[in-house]
Amino acid sequence: MRASTLPLFTSKNDPADAQVASHRLLARAGYIRKQASGLYAYLPFGYIVHRKVEQIVREEMDRFGGVEVSLPVITPAALWQESGRWDIMGKEMMRMEDRHTVPYTLGPTHEEAMTDLARSFLQSYKQLPINLYQIGKKYRDEIRPRYGLIRCREFTMKDAYSYHATDASLDETYQKMRECYRSIFERCGLKTIPVEADSGNMGGSGSEEFMVASEIGEETLLLCSDNACGYRSNQEKTPYICRDALQGVSTDIMQEISTPNAKTIEDVAKLLGIDTYHFVKAVIFEDKENIYLCFIPGDRELSEVKMKNISGATEYWPANAETIETLTNAKAGFTGPVGLKYKDTDTVTLPAAFPSTAEKDQNTPTRKTLHVYFDTHLKGRKGLVVGANKTDCHLKDVNEGRDFTATNTHDLVVAHAGDLCPQCKKSALTETRGIEVGHIFKLGKKYSQKMNLTVLDPNGKPLVPTMGCYGIGVGRTVATTVEQNHDDRGIIWNTALSPFKTYLVSLAKGDTEITFVDKLYNTLKNAGESVYLDDRDERAGIKFNDAELVGFPFIVTVGKRTMETGKIELKLRRTGEKLELTENELLEFLRSN
Amino acid sequence: MRASTLPLFTSKNDPADAQVASHRLLARAGYIRKQASGLYAYLPFGYIVHRKVEQIVREEMDRFGGVEVSLPVITPAALWQESGRWDIMGKEMMRMEDRHTVPYTLGPTHEEAMTDLARSFLQSYKQLPINLYQIGKKYRDEIRPRYGLIRCREFTMKDAYSYHATDASLDETYQKMRECYRSIFERCGLKTIPVEADSGNMGGSGSEEFMVASEIGEETLLLCSDNACGYRSNQEKTPYICRDALQGVSTDIMQEISTPNAKTIEDVAKLLGIDTYHFVKAVIFEDKENIYLCFIPGDRELSEVKMKNISGATEYWPANAETIETLTNAKAGFTGPVGLKYKDTDTVTLPAAFPSTAEKDQNTPTRKTLHVYFDTHLKGRKGLVVGANKTDCHLKDVNEGRDFTATNTHDLVVAHAGDLCPQCKKSALTETRGIEVGHIFKLGKKYSQKMNLTVLDPNGKPLVPTMGCYGIGVGRTVATTVEQNHDDRGIIWNTALSPFKTYLVSLAKGDTEITFVDKLYNTLKNAGESVYLDDRDERAGIKFNDAELVGFPFIVTVGKRTMETGKIELKLRRTGEKLELTENELLEFLRSN
Repeated sequence: MRASTLPLFTSKNDPADAQVASHRLLARAGYIRKQASGLYAYLPFGYIVHRKVEQIVREEMDRFGGVEVSLPVITPAALWQESGRWDIMGKEMMRMEDRHTVPYTLGPTHEEAMTDLARSFLQSYKQLPINLYQIGKKYRDEIRPRYGLIRCREFTMKDAYSYHATDASLDETYQKMRECYRSIFERCGLKTIPVEADSGNMGGSGSEEFMVASEIGEETLLLCSDNACGYRSNQEKTPYICRDALQGVSTDIMQEISTPNAKTIEDVAKLLGIDTYHFVKAVIFEDKENIYLCFIPGDRELSEVKMKNISGATEYWPANAETIETLTNAKAGFTGPVGLKYKDTDTVTLPAAFPSTAEKDQNTPTRKTLHVYFDTHLKGRKGLVVGANKTDCHLKDVNEGRDFTATNTHDLVVAHAGDLCPQCKKSALTETRGIEVGHIFKLGKKYSQKMNLTVLDPNGKPLVPTMGCYGIGVGRTVATTVEQNHDDRGIIWNTALSPFKTYLVSLAKGDTEITFVDKLYNTLKNAGESVYLDDRDERAGIKFNDAELVGFPFIVTVGKRTMETGKIELKLRRTGEKLELTENELLEFLRSN
Repeated sequence: MRASTLPLFTSKNDPADAQVASHRLLARAGYIRKQASGLYAYLPFGYIVHRKVEQIVREEMDRFGGVEVSLPVITPAALWQESGRWDIMGKEMMRMEDRHTVPYTLGPTHEEAMTDLARSFLQSYKQLPINLYQIGKKYRDEIRPRYGLIRCREFTMKDAYSYHATDASLDETYQKMRECYRSIFERCGLKTIPVEADSGNMGGSGSEEFMVASEIGEETLLLCSDNACGYRSNQEKTPYICRDALQGVSTDIMQEISTPNAKTIEDVAKLLGIDTYHFVKAVIFEDKENIYLCFIPGDRELSEVKMKNISGATEYWPANAETIETLTNAKAGFTGPVGLKYKDTDTVTLPAAFPSTAEKDQNTPTRKTLHVYFDTHLKGRKGLVVGANKTDCHLKDVNEGRDFTATNTHDLVVAHAGDLCPQCKKSALTETRGIEVGHIFKLGKKYSQKMNLTVLDPNGKPLVPTMGCYGIGVGRTVATTVEQNHDDRGIIWNTALSPFKTYLVSLAKGDTEITFVDKLYNTLKNAGESVYLDDRDERAGIKFNDAELVGFPFIVTVGKRTMETGKIELKLRRTGEKLELTENELLEFLRSN
């Protein structure tokens, strides 16, 4: 292709809002252009790269048994109501109405739509397993779109949904997808860190994220510092392993102490001269029907992801002051596990007209069910300091098993760098930031059950298929590849993704030189080479700069000197290495690279 | 590909709402499935065909100088406000708001968005001409989606927008696109009728539609019955040529006649025993600022398309009774060109509180400008019957030029089959119904001017580029190809669009036969042939029926008989012709077909 036919869209200036390399370079090199907040147009080079990634994804998905379909982008709300997600999806989900005021979503994901398609033709276990995928537009109304293609509002995803008669079959496809994703990112030249990820209430090894390490990543990854162990996990999913087996001093007598004006655990710890590690922290949430009371070690934070998975809570809020007072007879800040007047599964009757009951009859007290959870690490602990369920009072020298019993124990807290690796239990975890580019996930029967997808099993009995889902962000793969492959002069593509393999800089002046360049261009094209000829009427410096900026793997320069020496200059974009080659040597080089 | 990997999605039943062959067959053969009204999912075969059409469009657009980009589907309302279309697009345009209540459209077309992109990089006439195209989703909230892929609400279009320094350059690209479109539809095996189409106020040969003749078409085409002439036009654009030069009898004296209880021209014609051809019909519209009074021959209908092009009216409605009474001093039905108290460009002061002025101060009379248009065919006419501008009265024996003067004359009426061809002016026009699959259009400077797109001309002066736009419906191309290529057993694809070239029916039973089929399948694949192996455990009849239904060009059958005779059966889907071939002969046949 010639620049006179397919123009360059390079520009001299970075976009004002570009904070990261991929955004800056993709915009400046003329691959993308912003149309509105989080909405990007792809220019010719950008769209070629985008479609190359799509094609790699398609080929690998097909190779690993995927079946490509294409669903409408707008999905009827009715399907989301069936799954129960219409009401719980937040403002990230874009919604609209048609002329008949029927509501739709611009699909942020397609579990419902694909399951609706699947139930239209799945009748027998013989049709399983099937892994249906599509490559299409997705919408997410980010509150703060940024980083160019990394966090935008309209983007292309490959999303796949598999249906299975057995868990073993799901696991088989899941393992295939693990392999498939490794292959996809490898072909793209993108180094990813596969990490264990939260799998909701599926448990086990049911979710893996493919992360690109990056300072701007919104996810925190915890990696075992011992490579031989190789443990890698999303922080939100990482089990907390208490590093030290520090035990408090056991005393015979639990005693009440006055702690006025001490509002936080840190205040009380300072007052008593006892490390926060020896405290029990109470974290309380409520929703319309439940109160969730979580006791965790005083030096850690509650993991809301873990709490949600254990409790099944979806829309909840920090408990109101009135709820806490009803529960404990004390003000907030003094809740503890000793002498609580309610226990797990008790009904708590709250006074009327609380803000949380605004939608109900203001004069009717509200009954909620209490759920009490203890963090595993409190089991067997002695010498603890806990809230006394009495305003301005704490209890010290409290022993679990004697003064209270930690039942309903779970891993409830957020793990951090420095904690013990939950796999080898020897080395410490280290932390890195990551951008998610892919995610594979065992969904279970959540959608198939709610949407009444059944097939007949070998005995003619109805069977609800179990599901997996598998996503890859196409635009994000493009952007993170640039994050990992650029220098201060521009982008550095590999041959798999580069819009063209070779950038042919013509410095030809006069007919003889122009004829020579045209002949070389045609020779390369006829040899099946992908080559872009910069035949613009521009200065050499501008052409060289643009060649480096757009970042094709090989830069070939032809000009007066070529005519004199018979040698063509080939520059490797990545290393900067220059070779002087005859035409035949050049052809041979390109053929084998 | 094997059916065990890429399953068939054929079904025994037609969709309940399928009124046309393409909808019925694409659904039954498992190419598409409806998700909601006007929203279709593409199943694997359907999506392969869809992408093959996309690829043909892409290759031909590139060959004819197109530059591919990809715009966001959702487009900020702000751009549509710049062009002035936000307020005049009707309910067909889907609209939505983001979390910040900023309005957007799901683009039904992208003139604004592409011009916004173009103005971000176009600076000099040297960058012109440029023809930017994309292949992407479009949205149109049809009041009555139907006919499957032919009239749906989410669909894929190729839309191109070209920018030019001169009209000559626009015409050059326009002619290239004419050629490009012919080539695209030819490769798809789709017979189209290119017709002259309405080009708004651009005039001349500025718009061509590519129509597929079909009973279910929503457009009416008028074709010259003389093939040598070759005139073809959309009815809405066809000039009306009065067939007979019938003249009324001229009398010396125009006379008023009483026509009580005669409410229509037909009533009065019957009463007087005079053909409606000799009447003058008045058609009156108004908008917020204007009244449009059109006089046309009594036997024809006003063409609103022609009226809009002439007047520039966009949002208008039939004039209210009060407006007509103010204009004529008579009730509606008696408006005529003789003795009208207002003339063209006069200001008409309407009484207050008319429904049409509801949004204004109810007590202020509204001033509107009157525009009077005459149909060309009234010029020089004698012996006419016209409304007397007096309730229950008409005038007869009226002569144009004596009793009134037809100024401001235009072709204002709808042409019909039977009218004279406006090109050869000899033969009659015939009528056919058509579905539009493509449209090329000279836009002029409408968008570039309103959106302030300027480049510098050779003298450094600002120049507003003139534009063309060029659309093709991808899904509609798929559907109309099926409309033209099917029989009662199923679809009949050509090799260019067929999901696979050959459907290999395996009737193999037992290991020897299965090995034979597998070997043949691999031999074909290794020879680069696109082949689909039906290796299902189904009866022969079911496989044959499905093979015919899905419609690949070649059906190859292998079973016990093949083992005995060494001959493979090849059936041509289109003709039903059967050949008995050796493996080598089969390979040779497929290689050359």
